[in-house]
Amino acid sequence: MLTNRKEIQIEWGDCDPFGIVFFPRYFEYFDACTNALFQRALGITKAEMLRHYEIAGIPLVQASCTFFVPSSFGDVVNVESCVTHWGISSFSVQHKLFRGETLAVEGLEKRVWTVRVAGPGSPPRGQAIPREIIEKLS
Amino acid sequence: MLTNRKEIQIEWGDCDPFGIVFFPRYFEYFDACTNALFQRALGITKAEMLRHYEIAGIPLVQASCTFFVPSSFGDVVNVESCVTHWGISSFSVQHKLFRGETLAVEGLEKRVWTVRVAGPGSPPRGQAIPREIIEKLS
Amino acid sequence: MLTNRKEIQIEWGDCDPFGIVFFPRYFEYFDACTNALFQRALGITKAEMLRHYEIAGIPLVQASCTFFVPSSFGDVVNVESCVTHWGISSFSVQHKLFRGETLAVEGLEKRVWTVRVAGPGSPPRGQAIPREIIEKLS
Amino acid sequence: MLTNRKEIQIEWGDCDPFGIVFFPRYFEYFDACTNALFQRALGITKAEMLRHYEIAGIPLVQASCTFFVPSSFGDVVNVESCVTHWGISSFSVQHKLFRGETLAVEGLEKRVWTVRVAGPGSPPRGQAIPREIIEKLS
Repeated sequence: MLTNRKEIQIEWGDCDPFGIVFFPRYFEYFDACTNALFQRALGITKAEMLRHYEIAGIPLVQASCTFFVPSSFGDVVNVESCVTHWGISSFSVQHKLFRGETLAVEGLEKRVWTVRVAGPGSPPRGQAIPREIIEKLS
Repeated sequence: MLTNRKEIQIEWGDCDPFGIVFFPRYFEYFDACTNALFQRALGITKAEMLRHYEIAGIPLVQASCTFFVPSSFGDVVNVESCVTHWGISSFSVQHKLFRGETLAVEGLEKRVWTVRVAGPGSPPRGQAIPREIIEKLS
Repeated sequence: MLTNRKEIQIEWGDCDPFGIVFFPRYFEYFDACTNALFQRALGITKAEMLRHYEIAGIPLVQASCTFFVPSSFGDVVNVESCVTHWGISSFSVQHKLFRGETLAVEGLEKRVWTVRVAGPGSPPRGQAIPREIIEKLS
Repeated sequence: MLTNRKEIQIEWGDCDPFGIVFFPRYFEYFDACTNALFQRALGITKAEMLRHYEIAGIPLVQASCTFFVPSSFGDVVNVESCVTHWGISSFSVQHKLFRGETLAVEGLEKRVWTVRVAGPGSPPRGQAIPREIIEKLS
């Protein structure tokens, strides 16, 4: 199982009046981590991936996070991301955010491999994930 | 059980290159909806609540969303929010986001009633939720 | 000159560890105010405007803000927005954000009426603003 | 004049339905770049800077950007940041964002060295910038 590690610098603007990361920012971090994982596996950027596989994107059907330890501006954290489950058109990505050795946040995303059946603007629809994608991320 | 309804206008800047709401924005909407629910129940703003109850905030330990139907800029949606569970120091808030009559997103937050035991800057800690809070939100 | 007034609720998540609005959020507010101004003038949403006038958007070439007085979560502010200058393909939108009677932030955006000359994905280009648009906003 | 260079990866969630960076994100990038500039000059994080110099922050009184060339998700850009003017309590930070060799966005921030005169929660006020700060950033 391919695991990608991404370093994230916590910024002032990511933090709330409490002085800690405003929790929706973790979902933003993890979205970027999923893209980084695919970029590492496929060797192309998300923009190139959309064009190459003629997909509209990999939108989410479910997302969750458990917050164990807060982080604050100036912290540098590391996220380890991997695909933990493959369905026909859906897949699950797990993210573990570490502050030093401590697991600070754990996230799970369920996403769908999505095409637009009738060109730009038409409704998107799930499609079978290409075998090549699964192999490169395993 | 007190339920608050909040209207949200989906903005251009909330949407991604796919043309739909970038999913972390839903967690931002729901955070605002929790604050609106408390403001309605207590009759004071969050800033006043922090001062009045001498708490540091109501940070999250867990957050999740299930996305059924996407929304896009220009849409006006409605969120119904209520507390569905009370623990000693923790509680759960449920959010249902509707596009017209359709349930589009469902969110769940687990939060903690938190104080700073030794003044500003000291580590926050959970504390028993005042009975008055529970009564006003029930 | 048509002026639109939009009420904005300052949210917890819009504020930084200083306890005041993180300044890039003002640019987000003003972007939403520009869209609200056009929606009021034309009677259609931004999505409908893009389709009806076959434009790619109204992206910015310049944006500036002067911050006089800070705002914080729980504040309800009002923004007055109007187009102050029309060029051939560009125009300027002025925003004045009031806390009560006090001018708290003033913003200025220079935007361009933009089309994609060769369909989706092709490079966007400025185009003469339709007379009808100018009339409806004046 | 000390110039700091920061690499920024443009993320999917930073882009709008137009497919390009939603312009308020540039102000967020530049805020992070100012913090990185100070961190490089002083050798301490922003959190440590606030404590060491007993300041409340370096909030903005003015911010502006000129957008020459759009960027999109997957792009990696570089920002060069330096202080171009020192007043008594205020200073100006210039940011130049490059896509390859092309100047894509130019930003200017006017900020104030700010203290809280009467402890946490009291109104902030500008204070003379320490000579040491000016020397380390020049």
